[in-house]
Amino acid sequence: MDLFYYPEPLSDLITALARLPGIGPKTAARLSFYLLQNQDDATTLSLAVDAALKQIHSCSVCGNYTAADPCVICSGAKRDRSLICVVEQPRDVVALERTGEYKGLYHVLHGVLSPIDGIGPEQLNIQTLLKRLEGIEEVVVAVNPTIEGETTALYLSRLLKNLDISVTRLARGLPMGADLEYADDITIARALEGRRQI
Amino acid sequence: MDLFYYPEPLSDLITALARLPGIGPKTAARLSFYLLQNQDDATTLSLAVDAALKQIHSCSVCGNYTAADPCVICSGAKRDRSLICVVEQPRDVVALERTGEYKGLYHVLHGVLSPIDGIGPEQLNIQTLLKRLEGIEEVVVAVNPTIEGETTALYLSRLLKNLDISVTRLARGLPMGADLEYADDITIARALEGRRQI
Repeated sequence: MDLFYYPEPLSDLITALARLPGIGPKTAARLSFYLLQNQDDATTLSLAVDAALKQIHSCSVCGNYTAADPCVICSGAKRDRSLICVVEQPRDVVALERTGEYKGLYHVLHGVLSPIDGIGPEQLNIQTLLKRLEGIEEVVVAVNPTIEGETTALYLSRLLKNLDISVTRLARGLPMGADLEYADDITIARALEGRRQI
Repeated sequence: MDLFYYPEPLSDLITALARLPGIGPKTAARLSFYLLQNQDDATTLSLAVDAALKQIHSCSVCGNYTAADPCVICSGAKRDRSLICVVEQPRDVVALERTGEYKGLYHVLHGVLSPIDGIGPEQLNIQTLLKRLEGIEEVVVAVNPTIEGETTALYLSRLLKNLDISVTRLARGLPMGADLEYADDITIARALEGRRQI
């Protein structure tokens, strides 16, 4: 990038925007010019970032992002309190809520086990999970189907093994609209493995 | 977007980011989660936006974005002060500077004539151009080759006609690396029209 050509506050803004994921230096420059030309949007953005940083924190019960504490879901009257769904990130809660199919509680790990990155059980939000298991009948481990996710699921299932709690995980198989021809081998193998009576 | 699922400061942040050009609601949500997880980057961004809004303004001479006044180019010792290049936007100055081919001054219109959008000569930075023509020998009109750009170029050339200043514009033709087969008709026509002895 030719930050050389920009006055310093502008090149600082470009640099700050280019740190965001998926935003390269060209997009960052374009966004910076937009912000300078639309100062209302720029002020709104700056205030929104500040407000989010100040007001959003992790729910002390489930770890999800929230402004209240405990969060809306943890304090929800209509939630099934015998069910906890364990997810990696707050965004996964949104993905599950959107389906409208799940009425239980959540627990956000804020990551997955990844020894290579130095992330062990202590780095994750697991201790608070163990403290809220009273009355829980089922823990749905809804981590992503990656190697780290599988490792984390296995770790959690062992941790909860002797507690008389059923530990389940999301079904593996073909996604809706998929094409067998283009599906990868492991997905097809898992779909076969998990086949069910029609 | 299902902003309903997010605590309010988070949905406000998503909304503010989604107002930026090229950023849809999904990207805005992804960026918002990134900012919450990387609070240093978020603080840097917020401060950079504030600093840019406070410190960056239009140069009183040429209209380009600058922190100093007049800007680095207007006050540059090595600039050819007989030449002004008129561009639409501050980002066009960067595009021209990058070539290293141009050593004159600039003038930023901050737009082009567009009657349909209510943008007439009064809405553009044209009055200050007329005030800085003393000693100018050539005005290069480097607006974009769009209908509004052509209209603006024509308007400027008429405005400067009786002032003994040569008014030129950037050459039209095939861009480097282009393929005749895929070039549009108007580009080829302009390239023929502007053909030169080898």
